[in-house]
Amino acid sequence: MVTLADPLALQDIEPYLTAVDDLFARELSSDLDHVQKLTTHVERFRGKMLRPVLVFLSGLAARKNAQPLGTTHVTIATVVEMVHVATLIHDDVLDNAEIRRRGATVNHLHGNETAVLLGDLLISHAYHLCSGLDSQIASRAIGRTTNIVCEGELTQNFNRGNWALTEATYYDIIYRKTASLIETSCRLGAWASDADAATIEALGTYGREVGMAFQIVDDLLDIAGRQKTVGKSLGTDIEKGKLTLPMIHFLATAAPSHRQLLISLLESETSDRIDNVRQLLIPSASMRYARNQAQQRIDQAIAAISILAESKIRQTLINMAHFVTAREL
Amino acid sequence: MVTLADPLALQDIEPYLTAVDDLFARELSSDLDHVQKLTTHVERFRGKMLRPVLVFLSGLAARKNAQPLGTTHVTIATVVEMVHVATLIHDDVLDNAEIRRRGATVNHLHGNETAVLLGDLLISHAYHLCSGLDSQIASRAIGRTTNIVCEGELTQNFNRGNWALTEATYYDIIYRKTASLIETSCRLGAWASDADAATIEALGTYGREVGMAFQIVDDLLDIAGRQKTVGKSLGTDIEKGKLTLPMIHFLATAAPSHRQLLISLLESETSDRIDNVRQLLIPSASMRYARNQAQQRIDQAIAAISILAESKIRQTLINMAHFVTAREL
Repeated sequence: MVTLADPLALQDIEPYLTAVDDLFARELSSDLDHVQKLTTHVERFRGKMLRPVLVFLSGLAARKNAQPLGTTHVTIATVVEMVHVATLIHDDVLDNAEIRRRGATVNHLHGNETAVLLGDLLISHAYHLCSGLDSQIASRAIGRTTNIVCEGELTQNFNRGNWALTEATYYDIIYRKTASLIETSCRLGAWASDADAATIEALGTYGREVGMAFQIVDDLLDIAGRQKTVGKSLGTDIEKGKLTLPMIHFLATAAPSHRQLLISLLESETSDRIDNVRQLLIPSASMRYARNQAQQRIDQAIAAISILAESKIRQTLINMAHFVTAREL
Repeated sequence: MVTLADPLALQDIEPYLTAVDDLFARELSSDLDHVQKLTTHVERFRGKMLRPVLVFLSGLAARKNAQPLGTTHVTIATVVEMVHVATLIHDDVLDNAEIRRRGATVNHLHGNETAVLLGDLLISHAYHLCSGLDSQIASRAIGRTTNIVCEGELTQNFNRGNWALTEATYYDIIYRKTASLIETSCRLGAWASDADAATIEALGTYGREVGMAFQIVDDLLDIAGRQKTVGKSLGTDIEKGKLTLPMIHFLATAAPSHRQLLISLLESETSDRIDNVRQLLIPSASMRYARNQAQQRIDQAIAAISILAESKIRQTLINMAHFVTAREL
């Protein structure tokens, strides 16, 4: 659960998060032992539950009366969490990652083949669960979003080792692969509360900008974080030749000799290449630049929800946005 | 398209198959060049279009008047084809296969990472397309079916190298991974024609049994086929330690010394292990046994649709069923 954010309205959504836990397990339950074991292992990957939290907070922020949220919100929250976990499992395959949430990844424990299939199983269950709702609107939005997520991942993969990657393409990639699902979480949370278009739009913008900031910070952590604190394999962007914002900024602004040094380090095959890249980047102004960009996104996220009435819920959304850039290295 | 079957009613569905081609390409079209190139390459994997053909034939067999089929049928046919192609792409990753429909597989051409993501993109588009239908019924059925398909693939993967695999578990695996989607194609084709429950059930049984026979024959081809005729990488079941019906039957019925020989060949690491296994199995009675099992499934498929009125469509379904076991080695 979210631990660092001010718990203002978070205790209000605890029962909903428990309902997500239950529905997640129920939807994935299988009479095949070996499948049940895998899906049980997967539950430990669910950490902060950022997306479900945002579904519920958006639902509460958008509702027109004090009625509790309904089963539609719980279903949507479980669906977005399931989609998210599916992408984590496939990401770990693509990154050859060994650690996720302080535990072994599925690929590390059971091989790439099982991990590919388990990711497929989760995405299938996500759509299956979503198709149980009365209307097709959420299914359509989820399908559209996962299209975008896959295109983002393909674009990122396509640009591995492309040292000329622009900031614009980087933002396009992280919008698609990360921010789009967070945006959809907020939108659908508001939609399920029968919100008007302006409210849905405001919360969607909030989710998108929070998502952008979240990914920029995640990419900073991949360079500067300590694996013990962050709890997952780090340095994978460097390892896989995926340029992130600090590297793009460094390549665009550093002196030619420094620029050349970074490229040759990124291209080197030595075992200490990750450490060498880190040592070059961490003291550079490019890290600060990226952190500032993340902060600007947070400011935009908060500005977007200024049209909502002042409330405990809105304050919690603001606190959550700040929390994103305050994540520990 | 289906070439060997008697073309009785197949010319009637040609326009619908063209509509599937168009919708397939339209749904997958992307403004990202590298994505568009990949999805265009994928179109060449679409060969016989067995599942779309069965959607349309079931739709025609089940309709209550001579009205042409509607866009719902075309959408469903495109969705099941897209699901099928997605599973092919991920299967090829799991099998390290290099050849598919006489061309290079995605993993062989672009690496496992791109192939995993492209499979994800296709399955996402399948659900997205399906969620555009008026009702959730088809989405729900597709989601339920892909859950089953993934469980089948996981079970198959889990049982690699399990020389004690039973015939019952083998049938469960091939029902899940292959027959379930073909069954759903027939059911949804009939459902979209407003068929009554008995007709949906009959066509569903037809699809299931045809699907079972299809996979048994596919597994026979993996042992006895010539790569040039079949057009895809063969011997992968032996390579990956996946027992199929002839091997299971051989292990259950052959003399102990032959049984031990097969296991030691399957477990050997030599480059000629595939050829050695083939030479042991091909002349054995176990190949005939498997072919007979496939034939019995075909007989059951044909029996199931005897409740339908006699018609050109029904005859085409019968011919198609026979065609499955007549596939060339």
